[in-house]
Amino acid sequence: MQATLSEVNKMDEDQFKYIKDDERIDQLYSQNVQIIQSPSVFSFSLDAVLLADFVRPNFKKANLCVDLCAGNGAVGLFLNDKIAGKIYEVEIQPKLADMASRSIDLNHLTDRYEVLQMDIADVYSKIKKDSVDVVVCNPPYFGDLPTSKKNPNSYLAIARHEIKTNFGIVASRMSGLLKMNGHGYLVHRPDRLSEILSTLSLHRLEPKRIRFIHPKKERDANMVLIEVIKDGKPGGLKIIPPLVVSGDNDEYGLEVSELLYGKHK
Amino acid sequence: MQATLSEVNKMDEDQFKYIKDDERIDQLYSQNVQIIQSPSVFSFSLDAVLLADFVRPNFKKANLCVDLCAGNGAVGLFLNDKIAGKIYEVEIQPKLADMASRSIDLNHLTDRYEVLQMDIADVYSKIKKDSVDVVVCNPPYFGDLPTSKKNPNSYLAIARHEIKTNFGIVASRMSGLLKMNGHGYLVHRPDRLSEILSTLSLHRLEPKRIRFIHPKKERDANMVLIEVIKDGKPGGLKIIPPLVVSGDNDEYGLEVSELLYGKHK
Repeated sequence: MQATLSEVNKMDEDQFKYIKDDERIDQLYSQNVQIIQSPSVFSFSLDAVLLADFVRPNFKKANLCVDLCAGNGAVGLFLNDKIAGKIYEVEIQPKLADMASRSIDLNHLTDRYEVLQMDIADVYSKIKKDSVDVVVCNPPYFGDLPTSKKNPNSYLAIARHEIKTNFGIVASRMSGLLKMNGHGYLVHRPDRLSEILSTLSLHRLEPKRIRFIHPKKERDANMVLIEVIKDGKPGGLKIIPPLVVSGDNDEYGLEVSELLYGKHK
Repeated sequence: MQATLSEVNKMDEDQFKYIKDDERIDQLYSQNVQIIQSPSVFSFSLDAVLLADFVRPNFKKANLCVDLCAGNGAVGLFLNDKIAGKIYEVEIQPKLADMASRSIDLNHLTDRYEVLQMDIADVYSKIKKDSVDVVVCNPPYFGDLPTSKKNPNSYLAIARHEIKTNFGIVASRMSGLLKMNGHGYLVHRPDRLSEILSTLSLHRLEPKRIRFIHPKKERDANMVLIEVIKDGKPGGLKIIPPLVVSGDNDEYGLEVSELLYGKHK
């Protein structure tokens, strides 16, 4: 998926100072931010674009927003136009945290973005409990079972498998950070939906809106977007119409196309 | 919805002996069974048709199948062509159980169908625990809160609200009846999905397949179909493509149309 997402790859002389090794600078036509990526370390994928799109806009200047498991910071940066206030990007892998940090510099967003290179389990040492308005998270999707085939690339393995964290910790920290009635947003795999909803509930996170992503209209969902409210009243969950990624011609449908390339006037 | 579902209403001389009061005999063009209904007591709706359609066919002659909260027995009767073996219909309301029983007579199915007029909580007194292959259930959808507006018609109120039972009891009895690896099928409201999945999980019922029903493609889901396996391995849940009931012209879409009126050759 990454290749088709990297739509702009123009490198000004000036931009070279921000990148290292095999990195490049990508930008979606639909987004006003540039993202430092590396095919060998981490590149954002459609999941990040869909998660950022799923977040409700919130323009309160006093907002505090946290991106847990931030990777190279793409989700947080995609929120630039829809979430005001301070945005923390929490990422455990030094190499990815460094990329996220340089993307913030590149986009001249150091006044309101900050990268915290740390285990999300330790996040309360940097961000106060019950203080955050919005938490977003694109966590590792796959269990760390001995039978699961791990990606031989350890950067990608840690981003995709529950090696350094797991969903229980994700839900616990999302809940712990959020103020009462704060909103959390996450993307995950629907095959774990039952465990995910039970775990969220255990951590006082009430699901309020869910959207399933189907790769094609006749295929099972392969992603789920979930909005939760901390200490929200039980019930009232909305299953909004699903997103179908590709049409019968295997090309992106209108909605995904607009998310990636912008709206045609 | 009931009015459009009652497609055939021809009464032979002979059929009058099966019905009482304001009852009538309905049949879907797509189904080979006739159902005794009453607008003032209970009529099946699209939920029953969709639930029966969602059940996997199983033609083992030794099957034991139970319909919990059977109402007038429509779901069980719609399984006539896809589930072999013995089918019990468990219904607490004497008037509805009596209608279900007469529909069984009317369709000459007394050799394999039997109505148990009883509270599902007491079902083990009639059907052995861990003995059932397939359990289906179209339970009351709405909580019995003092604030909820109950239907002034007590037959309908009991069918729709958790007055005589609740989802915890439904899940417990579904699980208790099923053999290990037996399959349960239920229809419910998606606004309670989180509670439903947590409760199923508590009762060793692992969700394996879910389908959401949207009244129109741009509307939120208003029904959810769930298949569970007793003591199933956690995970592996499939969210299959949703069913959209009506098209842009407000008429039934092809899939629902075929479920109600049969396939056009």
